[in-house]
Amino acid sequence: MADRAKAGARALAALETAERDALLEGMARGLEVAREAILAANAEDVRDGERSGLSSALLDRLRLDDRRIAAMAEGIREMIALADPLGEVLETRERPSGLRIEKVRVPIGVIGIIYESRPNVTADAAALCIKAGNAVILRGGRESLRSNRAIAGALVSGAEGLPEGALQLVDTPDRDAVRELCEMTGRVDLLIPRGGEGLIEAVTRMARVPVIKHYKGVCHVYVDASADIEAALAIVENAKCQRPGVCNAMETMLVHAGIAERFLPEAARRLSARGVELRGDEATRALCAQVADIKAASEDDWSAEYLDLILAVRVVDDLDAAISHIARYGSQHSDAIVARDEHAQRRFAREVDSAAVYINASTRFTDGGEFGMGAEIGISTDKLHARGPMGLPELTTYKYVARGDGLIR
Amino acid sequence: MADRAKAGARALAALETAERDALLEGMARGLEVAREAILAANAEDVRDGERSGLSSALLDRLRLDDRRIAAMAEGIREMIALADPLGEVLETRERPSGLRIEKVRVPIGVIGIIYESRPNVTADAAALCIKAGNAVILRGGRESLRSNRAIAGALVSGAEGLPEGALQLVDTPDRDAVRELCEMTGRVDLLIPRGGEGLIEAVTRMARVPVIKHYKGVCHVYVDASADIEAALAIVENAKCQRPGVCNAMETMLVHAGIAERFLPEAARRLSARGVELRGDEATRALCAQVADIKAASEDDWSAEYLDLILAVRVVDDLDAAISHIARYGSQHSDAIVARDEHAQRRFAREVDSAAVYINASTRFTDGGEFGMGAEIGISTDKLHARGPMGLPELTTYKYVARGDGLIR
Repeated sequence: MADRAKAGARALAALETAERDALLEGMARGLEVAREAILAANAEDVRDGERSGLSSALLDRLRLDDRRIAAMAEGIREMIALADPLGEVLETRERPSGLRIEKVRVPIGVIGIIYESRPNVTADAAALCIKAGNAVILRGGRESLRSNRAIAGALVSGAEGLPEGALQLVDTPDRDAVRELCEMTGRVDLLIPRGGEGLIEAVTRMARVPVIKHYKGVCHVYVDASADIEAALAIVENAKCQRPGVCNAMETMLVHAGIAERFLPEAARRLSARGVELRGDEATRALCAQVADIKAASEDDWSAEYLDLILAVRVVDDLDAAISHIARYGSQHSDAIVARDEHAQRRFAREVDSAAVYINASTRFTDGGEFGMGAEIGISTDKLHARGPMGLPELTTYKYVARGDGLIR
Repeated sequence: MADRAKAGARALAALETAERDALLEGMARGLEVAREAILAANAEDVRDGERSGLSSALLDRLRLDDRRIAAMAEGIREMIALADPLGEVLETRERPSGLRIEKVRVPIGVIGIIYESRPNVTADAAALCIKAGNAVILRGGRESLRSNRAIAGALVSGAEGLPEGALQLVDTPDRDAVRELCEMTGRVDLLIPRGGEGLIEAVTRMARVPVIKHYKGVCHVYVDASADIEAALAIVENAKCQRPGVCNAMETMLVHAGIAERFLPEAARRLSARGVELRGDEATRALCAQVADIKAASEDDWSAEYLDLILAVRVVDDLDAAISHIARYGSQHSDAIVARDEHAQRRFAREVDSAAVYINASTRFTDGGEFGMGAEIGISTDKLHARGPMGLPELTTYKYVARGDGLIR
């Protein structure tokens, strides 16, 4: 399978922009043509999921309907409009030796995507990889195997001229398949695991091929002593409540002691009114005693990714304490400072080592669409190759093409 | 140790360019001041190496003298002159939401370098990492432990103001230390193994942290039917003979059948005269029978990294056969085509998936100095994050710093 993917990657890399875009159009059409078959396969997955007691949240992610299939096709068509990242000359150098060097953007090769429940990832990830000239090996969750099989089949049969091996689904629920993917040094160039902590950790443990993790988001908003209080209230409410189940939602709020008395009771009132359960340190609980009965935060709360209407709250002595807290408990995903003091803004932006650092803005902006990438394969919490939202350019690498005229050293 | 490194990395990241450059100057001076102590420690390593039967090539790599220590100090001073990669704004976006996003170059964090024999790597790698704002954990070979200890000690004591933990040497020959480094998820951000195949494979197998491999170079020169024969002769001689023991030397020569009769006998004559042992396929042996007695190449020869005056030679039917051979047996390091035909040049440059692809130039140019990088930590044979020669920018990553004005989503 990986050998076929490697051959497919070579063939894809030789295609022109218009040829790859035609494949994407074919994939979108393939989904529309196979709509009935995809829905039938999905209904079976959902029935099995109900029988085996999947939670209603998971069942909702699993379930497809006409609208969701149309959205998948639409998503692929939107990728066609995006600029082709390939062939871009990133740098040119002319050396004293006479060597003329171009650094050119090229595909990565074979990308393995390991994901859970949502079957739409099958279409999104496949189309993004192929747009960027990469062969893709998809490994979805066992609970959506029939849906994924139908979707992958529809994509392949719609994409006339798709090189053999360029788009493959691991068509077995067997867990050994993940292990094998992880060990395919020299044949799989990159693995992207997308899913829960258990999946990511298992892949990281097993992998001998490069992995870019899409790990958890323990995101912070730090409200500085110099903060505009109205801005801070709006940002923390948005960061916590607008969509609490996603990785860029705030999980811990840090408040400078110098503003806590003015800010915290009102913040607690607003957040409680939105149904947020607060878990605070001693200072927070004392300051908010009049407003809400706040539970004591335990050590575990500081590193918790709740993905729910729960928020850990801590009063910190100063900016240094906030930065240290984030360094210790954060997940290097997205962290925000609300401050008018430019010195504090600068230090926070420089010293907080996260993929995205916000100054007077909500953490919820960490997203390929909001960043103007058009489409994203996910949000990297790693520091190498790609950090934060990963769009098409992040699915490429480069090579050096150097010319001489019979040049020797 | 890794926790100290992490703290050291945070402190380093907060330093200005001039402060980091002053540390480098201190490191260079530290080497000069400690010259006697380094030589004494090295003499002990060399004595032990002789006793334990190290090869003379390895002993030569291990041995330090006044000139080599001066060269280390000089190498560090040259890095001071290189542009600071940190803080560079790689991209700016203003989004319709009002969010202003900057993509900024920042240090990677904690880098572990695992290397063999040459003690000068201790100084070079440490200085490059610190110039780029990274803390470094060095793990050299057991045969050079005393030398490395003396060098690392000199660097640290010379660099006044170096943050605690920013430069550390694993001060034990115990192999478990490598395993521990490999497993320090969240504390070591990148491992760079530099050395033989065994070392690289062991690190890749054990590592749970990201690794950039500096692996072998099975480099090819393909002589196309359209080649200028004089240029081809010069290039293959240079690529094989100028320095056969390095990773960018040619190991296999591929010759188009349409030029083989005119090119191969003369090439064999010249290479044999330089002491090169040729191992050829049937066609090569037949064509060169008058010139030299060429051994038959075995399957293993096609993937061999000889690092010696040995060359595998094969006649191929066409460009496609050459590209397929390289895809199958190459190591994605450096490969060259000699051709006048622009179509062949273009196809080779596009379809050969190597870090550096040369058109009418020798593979020997794959080198940080030749590429104008000033200094290199090595040559990556991986495709993610950094490919080919790795200089200062390749020792950095980026973060997004985004500003709003109380902006919510």
